[in-house]
Amino acid sequence: MMAQSGRSRVVIVGGGFGGLEAARGLAKAAVEITLLDQRNYHLFQPLLYQVATAALSPSEIAWPLRHVLTRQANVRVVMAQALAIDLERREVESTAGVFPYDHLILATGATHSYFGKPQWEQHAPGLKSLADATELRRRILSAFEQAETADPGARPALLTFAIVGGGATGVEMAGAVAELARDALSRDFRQIDPSLARVLLIEGGPRVLPALAEDLSAYAGRALRELGVEVMTGTTVTGLEDGRVQLGDQVIEAGTVIWAAGVAASKLAAELAAEHDRAGRVKVAADLSLPDHPEVFVVGDAAAMLSDGKPVPGIAPAAKQAGRHAARQVLAQIAGRPTEAFRYSHAGDLATIGRHNAAVQLGRVKLTGFIGWIFWGVAHVYFLIGLRNRIAVAFDWLWSWLTRQRNIRLIVQHRA
Amino acid sequence: MMAQSGRSRVVIVGGGFGGLEAARGLAKAAVEITLLDQRNYHLFQPLLYQVATAALSPSEIAWPLRHVLTRQANVRVVMAQALAIDLERREVESTAGVFPYDHLILATGATHSYFGKPQWEQHAPGLKSLADATELRRRILSAFEQAETADPGARPALLTFAIVGGGATGVEMAGAVAELARDALSRDFRQIDPSLARVLLIEGGPRVLPALAEDLSAYAGRALRELGVEVMTGTTVTGLEDGRVQLGDQVIEAGTVIWAAGVAASKLAAELAAEHDRAGRVKVAADLSLPDHPEVFVVGDAAAMLSDGKPVPGIAPAAKQAGRHAARQVLAQIAGRPTEAFRYSHAGDLATIGRHNAAVQLGRVKLTGFIGWIFWGVAHVYFLIGLRNRIAVAFDWLWSWLTRQRNIRLIVQHRA
Repeated sequence: MMAQSGRSRVVIVGGGFGGLEAARGLAKAAVEITLLDQRNYHLFQPLLYQVATAALSPSEIAWPLRHVLTRQANVRVVMAQALAIDLERREVESTAGVFPYDHLILATGATHSYFGKPQWEQHAPGLKSLADATELRRRILSAFEQAETADPGARPALLTFAIVGGGATGVEMAGAVAELARDALSRDFRQIDPSLARVLLIEGGPRVLPALAEDLSAYAGRALRELGVEVMTGTTVTGLEDGRVQLGDQVIEAGTVIWAAGVAASKLAAELAAEHDRAGRVKVAADLSLPDHPEVFVVGDAAAMLSDGKPVPGIAPAAKQAGRHAARQVLAQIAGRPTEAFRYSHAGDLATIGRHNAAVQLGRVKLTGFIGWIFWGVAHVYFLIGLRNRIAVAFDWLWSWLTRQRNIRLIVQHRA
Repeated sequence: MMAQSGRSRVVIVGGGFGGLEAARGLAKAAVEITLLDQRNYHLFQPLLYQVATAALSPSEIAWPLRHVLTRQANVRVVMAQALAIDLERREVESTAGVFPYDHLILATGATHSYFGKPQWEQHAPGLKSLADATELRRRILSAFEQAETADPGARPALLTFAIVGGGATGVEMAGAVAELARDALSRDFRQIDPSLARVLLIEGGPRVLPALAEDLSAYAGRALRELGVEVMTGTTVTGLEDGRVQLGDQVIEAGTVIWAAGVAASKLAAELAAEHDRAGRVKVAADLSLPDHPEVFVVGDAAAMLSDGKPVPGIAPAAKQAGRHAARQVLAQIAGRPTEAFRYSHAGDLATIGRHNAAVQLGRVKLTGFIGWIFWGVAHVYFLIGLRNRIAVAFDWLWSWLTRQRNIRLIVQHRA
């Protein structure tokens, strides 16, 4: 059933990298697009750790979806939470009513997985949303404030920061927290020496940044240690309470624990009437559609995507390519053409280590040190949406590079 | 009793304009200063309305107190909430322990007064803190989002914004909300026309901006009407429930109500064992000390200050002058000199009306229109702390002036 206009109704759930790219891929199509998101902004998640560590402001990495798409007349943006998908009736139920569709693109992303221990989340928040990032910023900055007035005996625990997970997010958080303590905060306290803060990076596998080549992992490990981070590989968290991390026999008193491990598909994807992998990701066909519902596509972290039979990594470029691919398949279906398999093109992997160092792998090309960091910085500024955010982020990075300061040191306690 | 060092202990409660200026006024003194604040930042309150209306980011008008005072070695900044003051024992009780003092400077500011109806606050939040400002921003932007998906019959109420109080804050909020609807949001919606939003400014007295001359009040009223604001003077709010404002016989359905009326001294000042005026402000002697406790000074909005027998207005320059004055009186007392009466020097009053208009009164000089706005802008940028914030604010103003956009359109729902 078509809309009254005779145009196909395309509903996209999620305005992240996958969903936004899907909407843009349909810009010239004679379709009626509804983009549903529970937030009013597109978030540039790769820089979220900089909000959590007081280097960037939330508004510098977020942009109103409505404004991004204002000139694309065939899109209607709806700020609402999608509650359930009825595959038989072809409807999305949401907090703003029911949206029937002819084609559905599900791009709802992922949350952290606490390995079956959801109670750990309150002790170790993750880093997926702006609210997460400002909450982590509050906890990190508050730890120093509390240590300043605490009994000397309580200070070491308050000034211990444990980061769980040695992927890109964990490595970037660990480097940023260590530098925050050593540079930006070092002279502002009277009773404590912030540069004595202990930063632990806990990784279950044998090396940090497992997506990169072994020599780059080793480089990143050395660079983190030079910043004062204690890198603990082959170490698994077995217990977590307020202020205490259990690592097998070892107990570490850490006032702040940050979770950067494990991925689980969003609730909406995990509850979809379809097959899932262990992380709750929807198993999709080669063209990213549901095997029994060719009109439904799942892209990005919500899907267990394959390319040439190999798993596609859960990173922003993959979500963007998948969103663009889904848009093309919708156009093919409307035109009566067969769909095509998704082929992911991997550009590279990269992670910053502190303020002017990074590990970058682009195929066989490897960049490290300041050159790596410049590449990382230019790439990230380039992919930000909007000239204003590019200028603002570049200005903040230049400023903190010149002054070694962090500009956004706000502890904001929000009302319940 | 002196501190062990033999130096006088000065405790300052509150790191706003008054408290920060008091600390700076003691920079060269041989005293031990403890500055207590429940927040970790100094807030430039006059620009809070720009955070609430998505024009500036919280970090642009806030600066870590610790960092502001990092080079002043005789100050210790403590992030803690002061709970009570024991005037006899000369102690401040706080969430970080008890702080004994030889001299106390109380600069805890004011909150809104709901004229004996505290239950109104939940329906009409005020604008005193960053959390207030981001909550108002969330409500204002969410109203447009909700209207977009609401039944057509529900839209007019959702798109009605009532601002209570016609002082500078109310006038600035009304102008900024009207322009947000008319310019920044006007093209981003598909179902509603944001420029049809109704903005009401409700003032109990006969004119807006009562602190300014009558002709400037009249000018501001006309300028607001040109922006589409309905200015209702001589109108008192008699009832307030969710979505409804009662004005005597008249009931207005308004989805968003913003409180910019009435001032009440902070709880700590109102509970001090001293005489108070009806707003809870502490009645101070001519030198700003407590009549029975010459070692205690109360400055800024927490005090009912007089200068030559006339009330001193509750604005930032008055708080700064009072903080500076209190610091000088502490120095006089330590040196065994008599204290002096506070003499307030009034530079002027000013308020913006929308994006490039303002009403400014500097003694006999009156500025309006774009010239007034330029004066207002330069004055505000000049008084911001830190070069980085001055550049960032100037950049954001220039950008939004060129593009008519608001950059910080984020609806962030914080965790409880």
